[in-house]
Amino acid sequence: MKKYEEKTIHTTPIYHGQIIDVRVDDVVLANGVHSKREIVSHPGAVGIIPITKANKIVFVRQYRKPLEKTILEIPAGRLEEGEAPEVTAIRELEEETGYTTDEVSLVTSFYTSPGFANERIYLYRSDNLTIAKNPSVGDEHGQIETVELTLEEAIQYVKDEKIHDAKTNYAVLYMQMLVGNQ
Amino acid sequence: MKKYEEKTIHTTPIYHGQIIDVRVDDVVLANGVHSKREIVSHPGAVGIIPITKANKIVFVRQYRKPLEKTILEIPAGRLEEGEAPEVTAIRELEEETGYTTDEVSLVTSFYTSPGFANERIYLYRSDNLTIAKNPSVGDEHGQIETVELTLEEAIQYVKDEKIHDAKTNYAVLYMQMLVGNQ
Repeated sequence: MKKYEEKTIHTTPIYHGQIIDVRVDDVVLANGVHSKREIVSHPGAVGIIPITKANKIVFVRQYRKPLEKTILEIPAGRLEEGEAPEVTAIRELEEETGYTTDEVSLVTSFYTSPGFANERIYLYRSDNLTIAKNPSVGDEHGQIETVELTLEEAIQYVKDEKIHDAKTNYAVLYMQMLVGNQ
Repeated sequence: MKKYEEKTIHTTPIYHGQIIDVRVDDVVLANGVHSKREIVSHPGAVGIIPITKANKIVFVRQYRKPLEKTILEIPAGRLEEGEAPEVTAIRELEEETGYTTDEVSLVTSFYTSPGFANERIYLYRSDNLTIAKNPSVGDEHGQIETVELTLEEAIQYVKDEKIHDAKTNYAVLYMQMLVGNQ
């Protein structure tokens, strides 16, 4: 048994959506306390740190319905069943920025909201962007604009709270950490 | 109208839980494309970076049901209706670590999963921890253990992928950025 494991005594399925599933688990904690856990299952996602030949990071500005506003993020997208994460990363890069690449490398991965969701993001980088000749086009075509920043500018954006997205802030500071190690 | 706004033409309520609400919005994008958005509403949360007098950061190891495993995080907790975020932060600090403080200061805030949820985390720090004499005790009492690390050790944990939680990784690198600025 895993330490502090919460044993499920009953599961109530709530919703089976196109992207998320929702359920409520009745659990018993290792200390005997009974509780309920409202849980969102998510397929996981990729984020990509796209770096141009001029050494700028490409961000995207897009509308996020849950927030009812437009925010600045690194390109990202949900994992699709049967699609390798690297393929998802390159497809989302093309759809959202118009750039493409032959190669992405995994930087790290993390959970976004472990209190209520199992979403895990795999963070990639790509250093050799070229303009896509026939980029993949998604539903959001024309609804996203790109912003290219140097790492120093991006760090200033983090400090000035011009970026409000955890994965993007973390990606910027992770790049700073890598540069500081060189 | 906000740029790239997605106009809601119909909302289907799915679930009204104790913590989260779930709904599906039928939307029209600014380019005319119709789509559906599965949206989780969350009350928001606080995270706290607790720093001991010996200059160590206090982390907690706790079981997260959505992941079915125990992970390392900074202390955190959901905002409660009618409770100031600073009060939530101090209460969660006491419940999860046994430390307390008179004062917390807001570091920054961010969204955790803007693609499907509106959860926003307010990140606080506290530099003058004392042992709580009569700490608040939550349901998870005895189910959480603390780990105290220097900032340098914590950064190494991030590099070694010993921390898998976005807010915690970001908090560590944010502290590194602040120290680098001194």
